[in-house]
Amino acid sequence: MKQTHSEAGRERGEVALLAEIRHRAAHDAGLVQKSGLRLGIGDDCALLTPRAGEELAVTTDLSIDGRHFRLNWHQPETIGHRVLARGLSDLAAMGARPVAAFLSLGLPRSLTCAADGRRSTRSRTWVQRFLDGFLALAETYNTPLAGGDLAESTLAVADIVLVGAVARGRALLRSGAKPGDLLYVTGALGGAAAGLARLVEIASSAGADPPRIPKKLAARLAPHLCPQPRIAQGLWLQRRGVASAALDLSDGLSTDLAHLCEESGVAAEIDASALPIHPAATLAQALHGGEDYELLFTAHPDTRLPRAIAGVPVTRIGRILKARAGRPAMTLISLKGAQPLEAHGWEHFS
Amino acid sequence: MKQTHSEAGRERGEVALLAEIRHRAAHDAGLVQKSGLRLGIGDDCALLTPRAGEELAVTTDLSIDGRHFRLNWHQPETIGHRVLARGLSDLAAMGARPVAAFLSLGLPRSLTCAADGRRSTRSRTWVQRFLDGFLALAETYNTPLAGGDLAESTLAVADIVLVGAVARGRALLRSGAKPGDLLYVTGALGGAAAGLARLVEIASSAGADPPRIPKKLAARLAPHLCPQPRIAQGLWLQRRGVASAALDLSDGLSTDLAHLCEESGVAAEIDASALPIHPAATLAQALHGGEDYELLFTAHPDTRLPRAIAGVPVTRIGRILKARAGRPAMTLISLKGAQPLEAHGWEHFS
Repeated sequence: MKQTHSEAGRERGEVALLAEIRHRAAHDAGLVQKSGLRLGIGDDCALLTPRAGEELAVTTDLSIDGRHFRLNWHQPETIGHRVLARGLSDLAAMGARPVAAFLSLGLPRSLTCAADGRRSTRSRTWVQRFLDGFLALAETYNTPLAGGDLAESTLAVADIVLVGAVARGRALLRSGAKPGDLLYVTGALGGAAAGLARLVEIASSAGADPPRIPKKLAARLAPHLCPQPRIAQGLWLQRRGVASAALDLSDGLSTDLAHLCEESGVAAEIDASALPIHPAATLAQALHGGEDYELLFTAHPDTRLPRAIAGVPVTRIGRILKARAGRPAMTLISLKGAQPLEAHGWEHFS
Repeated sequence: MKQTHSEAGRERGEVALLAEIRHRAAHDAGLVQKSGLRLGIGDDCALLTPRAGEELAVTTDLSIDGRHFRLNWHQPETIGHRVLARGLSDLAAMGARPVAAFLSLGLPRSLTCAADGRRSTRSRTWVQRFLDGFLALAETYNTPLAGGDLAESTLAVADIVLVGAVARGRALLRSGAKPGDLLYVTGALGGAAAGLARLVEIASSAGADPPRIPKKLAARLAPHLCPQPRIAQGLWLQRRGVASAALDLSDGLSTDLAHLCEESGVAAEIDASALPIHPAATLAQALHGGEDYELLFTAHPDTRLPRAIAGVPVTRIGRILKARAGRPAMTLISLKGAQPLEAHGWEHFS
């Protein structure tokens, strides 16, 4: 965040909001030191000092009202959590530890004011609640907020930048899968898509404000509302050097597996009966539903993997094949036999 | 940019646009190597390898249609140039060399199509022309495009992330100015504000499409339409260790000087007669107009500075004073005597 001019006694606009963000982001000085962030919010740039032998991983993800979240479906804390989780998940996919997050927010003025239109009231504003969700997840994953930008906008947009660190030459890439490698996934699949479908039902009957989720539904909606980036699992795979390729499931298994096949120049087959489908999800949601933020990775067939990494199950779901002209890049094996698997994930501008 | 699935022969949406960006961004492999970018577009993250003894500077700047640019005032090439210049200018202010840029674009679908609504025609689309301007400036300043994100949006938004490298502990900060230091500025002031004012006049009489700028006006509008980030000047100051504090003039001299005073805990006085006012600008535009992207810096009074750095004039415009209760942080000395100088730059949500 660029530091803007503040005048004593004036509680207004961007100045006050920036001051609050800077204050809240500065809370955890120990964490900041440990992560490698040397200078945070307040200057033209933040300064990051990687440790000897490390390189830096950088990712950005743009979230837009109506596309990646909806102001009338999602509580502000949920949006803050999900915006950051998207970025952290990309670091997890590379096996990187988080160093710092940067947040660019474009917000309608109303979201920076309390319900009565004033900023200096006791009730929390939308953006304060957004930061509650954002900073709670940041703390969980030792990720200091190191900067960003703020602007007034007719549409709510949030661009998240994550910088991580990983030992040089050891990052998990999409491009390393070899024919014969086995294909694994962490956690369960389709839970986010199933949770979203349920949320849409609830929100449709709730009106203009985002619905409060009844306690008994919280667990079912959790994969959509508060996905957990697999940082510990990515670090485990990277440090042991056991994964030949990896990426995170953001667009859906079929689409993300297609990315892996394309970048590695290989084909793949999935065993439908082996898929760890979330109890609330369908096979289609497990295959094509996005935003599970689990890790998809490959390993040499001789590699022995535990049943769980840092408490999250690991399941073998298929294997890598040679790419051959005339054969589909992806095949689904089920009781019906082998069928081509097509990528049916989300695409913009299509 | 996350790599998305592409199917041979299909020319559609995000896939085609991403493929084009990846292709165009990959042109300069030599540059990529030199800058420290080890892995660019195509994986979950880009990988950056700083040189020994370097730390990384990171900045993000959000640009929004109607706030930072206007689709009906600015040609797409101009918007691409200005989006990147904003980020590069923050690196210049720290004395950092560019390593990589990341671009998150949210665009209405119409901007990714040619005028006839199809993507596969000979006429260039808005986003292609945006990239023309963006990549031309990136090449000038040896800045590879290393990633980003794309999304469909009802409002055009562009978030630019710049990563730079600087020798550890040598970055130019806002916080180092000391009483007695002299205050300097590169280039001329107010030219961007004057250029914008002229553009608004031209655009108002031109209708819905952004006006083509007549050749005889190009030079006058250049400070607004194609500002040059002072990378070489920032590097010069950093390498010689002559600046005690620095920042870039993005919000306007009065507002940015207030930032410097606040971060350094000092006051400042400006000599109006010394200001290098752009020939087309007024004193008010030089004092308060934003987006000149010149560097404002301080140096010890014993420091001898050249009249120009890398071809850009350097002008002494005032000095740093002790901050004192009851005295304004900023004073303007002119023929009328000494007057308090107030920060009148841009603020969102105010």
